[in-house]
Amino acid sequence: MSVTKPSLPKGTRDFSPQEMVKRNYIFDTIKTVFRKYGYAEIQTPSMENLQTLTGKYGDEGDKLIFKILESGEYTSDINKNLLPKIDSLIVKEKTMDDFREIAKDFSRFIASTIQKIKNENPLYQKDFLLINLNSNTFLEDIKRIDCFFEIKYIFVKYLFSKKTVNPKFIHFNNRFDYYGSILNEDFCFDEIYKGFLYVINQSKSLRRIINLEISARKLLNVNELTPIISKKALRYDLTVPFARYVVMHQNDIAFPFKRFQVQPVWRADRPQKGRYREFYQCDADVVGSPSLLNEAEFVLIYHEALSKLGLKDFTIKINNRKILSGIAEIIGKPELIVDMTVAIDKLDKIGLDGVAKELIERGFTEADIEKLKPVILLQGSNIEKLVSLKSVLSASETGLKGIGEIETVFNYVAKLVTDNPKLTTQIELDITLARGLNYYTGCIFEVKTNEVAMGSIGGGGRYDDLTGMFGLKDLTGVGISFGADRIYDVLEELNLFPTSAQQGTKVLISNFDEAAELYALPLLQQLREASIASELYPSSAKLKKQMSYADAKNIPYVILIGEEEIQSNLLTLKDMASGEQQKLIAAEIIERLK
Amino acid sequence: MSVTKPSLPKGTRDFSPQEMVKRNYIFDTIKTVFRKYGYAEIQTPSMENLQTLTGKYGDEGDKLIFKILESGEYTSDINKNLLPKIDSLIVKEKTMDDFREIAKDFSRFIASTIQKIKNENPLYQKDFLLINLNSNTFLEDIKRIDCFFEIKYIFVKYLFSKKTVNPKFIHFNNRFDYYGSILNEDFCFDEIYKGFLYVINQSKSLRRIINLEISARKLLNVNELTPIISKKALRYDLTVPFARYVVMHQNDIAFPFKRFQVQPVWRADRPQKGRYREFYQCDADVVGSPSLLNEAEFVLIYHEALSKLGLKDFTIKINNRKILSGIAEIIGKPELIVDMTVAIDKLDKIGLDGVAKELIERGFTEADIEKLKPVILLQGSNIEKLVSLKSVLSASETGLKGIGEIETVFNYVAKLVTDNPKLTTQIELDITLARGLNYYTGCIFEVKTNEVAMGSIGGGGRYDDLTGMFGLKDLTGVGISFGADRIYDVLEELNLFPTSAQQGTKVLISNFDEAAELYALPLLQQLREASIASELYPSSAKLKKQMSYADAKNIPYVILIGEEEIQSNLLTLKDMASGEQQKLIAAEIIERLK
Repeated sequence: MSVTKPSLPKGTRDFSPQEMVKRNYIFDTIKTVFRKYGYAEIQTPSMENLQTLTGKYGDEGDKLIFKILESGEYTSDINKNLLPKIDSLIVKEKTMDDFREIAKDFSRFIASTIQKIKNENPLYQKDFLLINLNSNTFLEDIKRIDCFFEIKYIFVKYLFSKKTVNPKFIHFNNRFDYYGSILNEDFCFDEIYKGFLYVINQSKSLRRIINLEISARKLLNVNELTPIISKKALRYDLTVPFARYVVMHQNDIAFPFKRFQVQPVWRADRPQKGRYREFYQCDADVVGSPSLLNEAEFVLIYHEALSKLGLKDFTIKINNRKILSGIAEIIGKPELIVDMTVAIDKLDKIGLDGVAKELIERGFTEADIEKLKPVILLQGSNIEKLVSLKSVLSASETGLKGIGEIETVFNYVAKLVTDNPKLTTQIELDITLARGLNYYTGCIFEVKTNEVAMGSIGGGGRYDDLTGMFGLKDLTGVGISFGADRIYDVLEELNLFPTSAQQGTKVLISNFDEAAELYALPLLQQLREASIASELYPSSAKLKKQMSYADAKNIPYVILIGEEEIQSNLLTLKDMASGEQQKLIAAEIIERLK
Repeated sequence: MSVTKPSLPKGTRDFSPQEMVKRNYIFDTIKTVFRKYGYAEIQTPSMENLQTLTGKYGDEGDKLIFKILESGEYTSDINKNLLPKIDSLIVKEKTMDDFREIAKDFSRFIASTIQKIKNENPLYQKDFLLINLNSNTFLEDIKRIDCFFEIKYIFVKYLFSKKTVNPKFIHFNNRFDYYGSILNEDFCFDEIYKGFLYVINQSKSLRRIINLEISARKLLNVNELTPIISKKALRYDLTVPFARYVVMHQNDIAFPFKRFQVQPVWRADRPQKGRYREFYQCDADVVGSPSLLNEAEFVLIYHEALSKLGLKDFTIKINNRKILSGIAEIIGKPELIVDMTVAIDKLDKIGLDGVAKELIERGFTEADIEKLKPVILLQGSNIEKLVSLKSVLSASETGLKGIGEIETVFNYVAKLVTDNPKLTTQIELDITLARGLNYYTGCIFEVKTNEVAMGSIGGGGRYDDLTGMFGLKDLTGVGISFGADRIYDVLEELNLFPTSAQQGTKVLISNFDEAAELYALPLLQQLREASIASELYPSSAKLKKQMSYADAKNIPYVILIGEEEIQSNLLTLKDMASGEQQKLIAAEIIERLK
């Protein structure tokens, strides 16, 4: 077995014990909140059939799906598909005959051209030949044989082999450039004629090679090859597998179906800081319930989970697709809704002037922008914004419906939470929010922390036809997602991970010699019986080594057992943080560490 | 977007909320025990570099690794590797000339043969031709042209085209079988000769096609193609990624390193009942500690985790590779240790006679078997077995070392657990246990339940050179694994899942109209503030529908809020199991459900 220097695939990560404890803390916190709100966990396989995933994420998304190579002799399927192609080339022997016919025509043309030249110029002139070879008809005839360059090559090769070459003569035209320049002054028409015959004679096998090369290149085209050698892929998100799950298990599901799912997804994105090829998504969705109570509860779930994680200043942004549709409608450009939202989504980054410029580029007029301005620059409290919007959108039924939905959500939140002024300031109606517009049909969510510069740490929305792609129509879904990796970075930066969440083994029993080890064994078991995570250092070693082991593992207590301790039954309990040592009997230690 | 009827890849599974609760119960129980014994969790990426995995699981294992197709324009790499091959075929034009030379020889041979026949038989006989064509020399010459069958084909095609065919004549020999039978009686030697010339004339292009076909087939060979189009694969187990992890992070790890890992693995095995292509492994390993205390603690971990899961009658089998080596050594056939263990491992299934028969087949003598018998049929308590073994293996240093290791493990267990007679009966020294023999070097474990017919539900062992494959030598490792899927089936069959483990939402608040919904909202929030998982049915609906929702979701309580309840503030709490209903104020309900 050869030794491989180990490495990890680009964009993937190991998680150390310290990291796992922190990650589990985030996941457990979020899961606990999901459960409290009645969401039940499901899991789907990492692999889905390729056809389940393709076409669901757009062309760009499709390219980022990790495909799994068929196992076993997967090439037999390629051969099944490739060999008929090669066979078809054999059948195409007939086209070779066609080619030979063309070649015959061509040689007849050459012969007659030469004859014509000779007839018209009994003392033939090299200049005349030049002109004739440059004529359009001549080139057209050469082009009829579509392996032009190969013919040129063999032709020159032939001329070289005749050893009559002197690099000073005829320039047929610029397409013969280099080779043309090496033809001999003394070169005669008959030689040219023979040269072309030689070319034609060779070209059959040449032509076949070219055909097969083209065929091979075509065969090895990604789009053609992939479906033959890959039928499965790693999931790209949790939403499409969830839709697939709902459709497949629709008869076993009690709707409305409230599920949460915390599993990794894979994307063949170019890895960069904060963007990984394998990362976890934490999704909660409810399917089969149009009630806006669900949207309101998602606001509360965000609020509760993030607050529990120790975040203090974050914003839960909310918008509604119908409001965006209403705005586009009022301007009279409903078809440009995507262009409009893409542009105004950039307000934070490029300012009003930038947005205006982009809107113009995307087909809006100055007059449109004047109408849009009050919407883009919407200010004030959520209520004030809603009042302004209602007047702007008074002529759009869709727009007013969107406003109504937002109001209902706000009302639900207010009635659920009667005394939480903080929550009220956390929710923000943001008309520029447009994420995932292509499939959201109702409310849209996005969560940002204001304590650390970081993209969104959560988002979601409602899509009225979640399962339609799998043939189950009119099932509405609404869901949210937590960005666990980003939340991790935020908590790390703000130093918000509780020390209790970082604790593995609570106590290490030292091991200095066999006698101490023997003494320690029943104590070890007693500690564990009291559910105290504990270890006996597995073989005798120097104090320093055992202490640094405890340090490295963040073990907060060490029980030191030496000769004195064995005789007195008073064991030394060392607090690793303070360095303080105490002499206690076993029962006291257990009581203390419980 | 076309509608896809959804399905799952073979051998993969969805897990419903009910299943997830049970699976989490198993995982959480095992993880809690791992943590109590000082094991810390790590996770590794689902994908590993292909070279990290290949060669670690044997040829059969390598085939079962799921490879991931390179993303992007992965075919460009094939083309880079394929096209030079096609080019090399073009260069091989020279071999075509060689072929023509052979063909010329061959036609000369035919001509001279015919001439010879004519000379010797002025009135030539068809029978004579038959004999000559059947002669070894003739066939040898045909074989010199190695596209024998194609030549035969074209030859017959030629004969057909001459329209001189009558399907009643010459059988050249059985290799010409079918075609031979259709040759014409009036067929003359000259025609045969011309036929062969025709064949030779055609064979150049034929030969090229065949060459390219062979080349294409070769190109599309799995072993050659896979490394070009796949550089990553899904992990096959948790052990190799763990070894990779240890080597990569060796400078950050405090040894001995006790880690556990609960993650899915993927194998392209043929799916069947109980065997999946994606399944979870639950592993605990310690690396860098030769102490047999680790082995003893693994026995306790098995005992504790399985007991906590409610299993009562299970056996923790233990063996030691060194004992098996000692036995093979005593018989004088150390090189046959694998054959020996494979055979005696089958004792349960095929009995002593079967084992004896297989041992003979595998190179042992009757005398060897006589020596083996007392070992194979070892009876009695663990101590009695050890006593017998000691006498059998008295001449083998290795064997005695293995016995010593087992004794040390037993002693550790006895000293850790002083009053658990059950545990003592659960441990069984089993000399026929050999799983994973190829890499285990010390103790070997296997756990079986005796309550349900089922394969092993756990196993493991010590391997002295865990990380050597990645260049870090002499780091000993010992580990165990729990078979979570099998444990799931066992618990299900024995009905051992606790009902408490199955609980998601604890209470559903009914929703009959807007007034009731408004009344319910603050109550819902109060319940959640008291950490009671609760739901309000998200829109008003008939009682029956809401009750069956609660039933389907196993929600144990429903709060019914009608007009009367709103007026009296006395809410109806329905116990779904007993059907009992009680009128209580909100605070009482919260107290009750806490």
